[in-house]
Amino acid sequence: MNTVRVNLGSRSYDIVITPGDPAGIGPFVRSVLRKASTALVVCDANTQAHGRAAEATLAASGLRTGFATVPAGEPSKSMEQLAKLYDALYDLAADRSTAVVAVGGGVIGDLAGFAAASYNRGLPLVMVPTTSLSMVDSSVGGKTGINHPKGKNLIGAFHQPAGVWIDLSYLDTLPEREFLSGLAEVVKYGVILDADFFAYLEANAAEIRARAPQALMHIVSRSCRLKADVVEKDEHETTGLRAVLNYGHTFAHAFETCGGYGTLLHGEAVAIGMECAARLAQKMELIGADFVARQTKLLQALALPIVPPAQWRTDELIAVMRRDKKAVGGQMRFILPTRIGEVKLFDNVPEPLVRAVLESR
Amino acid sequence: MNTVRVNLGSRSYDIVITPGDPAGIGPFVRSVLRKASTALVVCDANTQAHGRAAEATLAASGLRTGFATVPAGEPSKSMEQLAKLYDALYDLAADRSTAVVAVGGGVIGDLAGFAAASYNRGLPLVMVPTTSLSMVDSSVGGKTGINHPKGKNLIGAFHQPAGVWIDLSYLDTLPEREFLSGLAEVVKYGVILDADFFAYLEANAAEIRARAPQALMHIVSRSCRLKADVVEKDEHETTGLRAVLNYGHTFAHAFETCGGYGTLLHGEAVAIGMECAARLAQKMELIGADFVARQTKLLQALALPIVPPAQWRTDELIAVMRRDKKAVGGQMRFILPTRIGEVKLFDNVPEPLVRAVLESR
Ligand SMILES: NC(=O)c1ccc[n+]([C@@H]2O[C@H](COP(=O)([O-])OP(=O)(O)OC[C@H]3O[C@@H](n4cnc5c(N)ncnc54)[C@H](O)[C@@H]3O)[C@@H](O)[C@H]2O)c1
Ligand SMILES: NC(=O)c1ccc[n+]([C@@H]2O[C@H](COP(=O)([O-])OP(=O)(O)OC[C@H]3O[C@@H](n4cnc5c(N)ncnc54)[C@H](O)[C@@H]3O)[C@@H](O)[C@H]2O)c1
Ligand SMILES: [Zn+2]
Ligand SMILES: [Zn+2]
Repeated sequence: MNTVRVNLGSRSYDIVITPGDPAGIGPFVRSVLRKASTALVVCDANTQAHGRAAEATLAASGLRTGFATVPAGEPSKSMEQLAKLYDALYDLAADRSTAVVAVGGGVIGDLAGFAAASYNRGLPLVMVPTTSLSMVDSSVGGKTGINHPKGKNLIGAFHQPAGVWIDLSYLDTLPEREFLSGLAEVVKYGVILDADFFAYLEANAAEIRARAPQALMHIVSRSCRLKADVVEKDEHETTGLRAVLNYGHTFAHAFETCGGYGTLLHGEAVAIGMECAARLAQKMELIGADFVARQTKLLQALALPIVPPAQWRTDELIAVMRRDKKAVGGQMRFILPTRIGEVKLFDNVPEPLVRAVLESR
Repeated sequence: MNTVRVNLGSRSYDIVITPGDPAGIGPFVRSVLRKASTALVVCDANTQAHGRAAEATLAASGLRTGFATVPAGEPSKSMEQLAKLYDALYDLAADRSTAVVAVGGGVIGDLAGFAAASYNRGLPLVMVPTTSLSMVDSSVGGKTGINHPKGKNLIGAFHQPAGVWIDLSYLDTLPEREFLSGLAEVVKYGVILDADFFAYLEANAAEIRARAPQALMHIVSRSCRLKADVVEKDEHETTGLRAVLNYGHTFAHAFETCGGYGTLLHGEAVAIGMECAARLAQKMELIGADFVARQTKLLQALALPIVPPAQWRTDELIAVMRRDKKAVGGQMRFILPTRIGEVKLFDNVPEPLVRAVLESR
């Protein structure tokens, strides 16, 4: 068992990573939320079994529980599903000490997290991530939210969890494609922050793909620590520091928006986005061909896609990128690598270069 | 012109109170939000003229503007109207520096404030209150939110404004009943925090009702200062201190819920709620008949109602009060006066006393 502490003053919390301890959730929630007497477990159709198991351990720990299931998938990050969670909280007679326990991937974490952020102006939230992506990324850092019909994550709030419980054994039921998708964010941490970690991933790509327990424990713990380091320095994305986490994401969000949610998994979009960002950085002469080659090789070793589907129209992708919420005043801004382990923010990236990267498929 | 500073560290802001300066909004928004290049003005059907004037001064100050109008009244604090504001922000190509300027009463402030809190995980907000209630209460302190079909303000977030612009001349167009309603909150500040202010209100009730400019400037400035003092000590309602502002409100929310939004104005419900709370405190022997008489007399001098409509069922009111968000674990909690200028929180108030107060109509 590893513990990663996220230091945010009065909003500090622990991320506990265990190889497998399904009965541990109840005691964990009790220990981080001593005042809670009720808990709403939120899951989707595919995490329902894990959700019911979590509910049983919460009940065994003396909590009165409610249970809400939403359909699996990105379309559930909607006003409609949000309204259903509000109803579930109301039906549970939730008060300000009621815990919201999100058992699922990033969709459940973001949706249940935003419900927790906005019901009664804030309920305590415990994240129980069940996908590789949510374990290394979405359950840490306090971003919650839903989608607007015209843009991903346009509606949301910062709301730090009271604790994060990561049980690696949940990954046993996760389909291969989903598992691999989450690894894109792991590669991202190596590129943006930690050359040694990047080298570890290169050296252990086969073990990671095979889900070797030791490797999983290492990559999840290290990824959480790296993300926590960034979040601690820029909790609300105001100093600009947190923006490094958006490496590959300006492209990725455009792919997800234009492709229609569902064509690509988030991590797959990020993998292609990182490939595009690296090639953009090469065009801008920030890095050499060797960097691009190493990143490409690692992404491929993890069976991640690197080429944007040919049918997407460049004009449309560019238009979406210009509206990206990281854009200010319509400029094109990108987080780009300067070497492995370091990225910087570049304003006013010339559009022709972006276009060239997108069109060389 | 008076300025009240709300000290909340990095979230500090000024409340500017002017007797009449409609052209001042543009420069004010510019001065508190130097980075803003766009602004969405939000108003309702009755504040549209003030909203258009505000828009003109924002445009004259060099901001690109958008304009959104929602129907007047409490039902606009809904997911539907919220979604419309998200659309308006999207259509304006809002980025994180886009200002939301709420020109209206508490409904507009709460709704536009919550849109600002939750769009792109937070846009800067400028409050331009146009009702007596919003000038002395809802535009100060950072509470934003909408209603759930089953409960008032159940959905929301804390989001402090970047500035509050109070132009007393807006009150010229406000109907008498609305104007008087807001005075209930002014009386509340006297009761809970400031015996001298209570005495001022007793001595100047006629001038206040007649909207004498000097009197308005004094009561609005003093009310904002008193509310700011409380908010500074308990920004997120965690220490319990901010709860004093809920004097009369546990009753009031039940009246508003059971009566159906619209039967009573918020301030009218608060006036009746304070009368009930005072009588409850008298039954609990916290105060004497003299206190109740003084408060009743002042409320009546301001033409505010004090008796709950006879048709409301006590059982239903009690049931709603038990679910009130200030209730923890189903107990009945009330903020009750111990003398003029001081209130305390009482847990476990015996239900028969509450029932007796409600039934002695
Ligand atoms: N808040 C943040 O900081 C942040 C960061 C990154 C991504 N995100 C968001 O996360 C979302 C993507 O997260 P995700 O990839 O976890 O998607 P997801 O939640 O949709 O999960 C992927 C799929 O796996 C299923 N699943 C989950 N756990 C399972 C398990 N243990 N066994 C079997 N099936 C399981 C789900 O039902 C779903 O079908 C996106 O909406 C993205 O915007 C948020
Ligand atoms: N956020 C907080 O801290 C807080 C505190 C108290 C109350 N509130 C909320 O405030 C709301 C009540 O606020 P309100 O009383 O201002 O209601 P309101 O916003 O509905 O305004 C009352 C009426 O007056 C009209 N109006 C507003 N300004 C006008 C003007 N200058 N001239 C003519 N007509 C005008 C409005 O169109 C409306 O019909 C409630 O929803 C309550 O929950 C919030
Ligand atoms: Zn991501
Ligand atoms: Zn009030």
